[in-house]
Amino acid sequence: MERLPYRTTQAAAAYDSIRQLPAVVLLENVRSLYNVGAFFRTADAAGLRKLYLCGITACPPHTGIHKTALGAEASVAWEYAHGPTPQVNRLRAEGCEIAAVETSMQSVDLFDWQPAFPVCVIFGNEIEGISPNVSALADTHVRIPMLGTKHSLNVATAGGIVIYELLRKYRGLAVRC
Amino acid sequence: MERLPYRTTQAAAAYDSIRQLPAVVLLENVRSLYNVGAFFRTADAAGLRKLYLCGITACPPHTGIHKTALGAEASVAWEYAHGPTPQVNRLRAEGCEIAAVETSMQSVDLFDWQPAFPVCVIFGNEIEGISPNVSALADTHVRIPMLGTKHSLNVATAGGIVIYELLRKYRGLAVRC
Repeated sequence: MERLPYRTTQAAAAYDSIRQLPAVVLLENVRSLYNVGAFFRTADAAGLRKLYLCGITACPPHTGIHKTALGAEASVAWEYAHGPTPQVNRLRAEGCEIAAVETSMQSVDLFDWQPAFPVCVIFGNEIEGISPNVSALADTHVRIPMLGTKHSLNVATAGGIVIYELLRKYRGLAVRC
Repeated sequence: MERLPYRTTQAAAAYDSIRQLPAVVLLENVRSLYNVGAFFRTADAAGLRKLYLCGITACPPHTGIHKTALGAEASVAWEYAHGPTPQVNRLRAEGCEIAAVETSMQSVDLFDWQPAFPVCVIFGNEIEGISPNVSALADTHVRIPMLGTKHSLNVATAGGIVIYELLRKYRGLAVRC
């Protein structure tokens, strides 16, 4: 069985030294408290810069969020805004690529996507997805490959997949530098 | 902003033609019905071959599983066994690499891992993780990078991250062939 491709010490040090991912996540109208809590836990684990909570998305402190965040809501920076447009425009002005996670005609496969860090990734409501006006603000639409009979994933699972793919790509850039 | 690295038609066709991932997942003592349901939904989306449900892990049909599986429990092959050892031994005899997702002294970083397909990936209990005797059966221990203050992810989020990283690697092999 093939094992670890041993990295050079220098590359390994560059890889291991990354403690923060130059990315933020914006949740638009995420209904489930458990999903919001799971995003906090993933954000902590992947070194995400900040979570933006918008619309009906609940904010800490909340028992329901704590149940899945397990304390990560205290370690991850977050901010609430009713409508996400000003946040998105500010993040773009600060140099962020704005990426909406949704399947659309122009969406790029997650694994083909070459993000221009820093990145803001938008996830939408569990049923409705991202609202059309917020979707229209995005520079890039990113789709997670779907091989099965269903056409979507749990939003917190999708969050984990996208955030860790960003971490993988970012670490890859650091090692190549 | 950098966009899609356009693949050649042949490579894109090979990539898009993959409808099944040569991987199975074994859940040992996963307590939460919602987590089990989420694994079904991810398994459907990523074209996983089968889910093995072991120990206290609940099986369909179950309202709690359905709440997060949303019907994927009808499209994904699954099997229950009280103790996972016979299943693990059978899968190894059939040529599977057995990988336990846990952080240990000998664990390999998920992104460095070069799986030898087909693969069986084991996830454990939300609190206790994988039991020592099942962990000892694994050929490979795989760890998900943790940059934050916490030392674990929600098990269903971890499942999404690992399963989609397998899909990415498998598609990469198909395109190179």
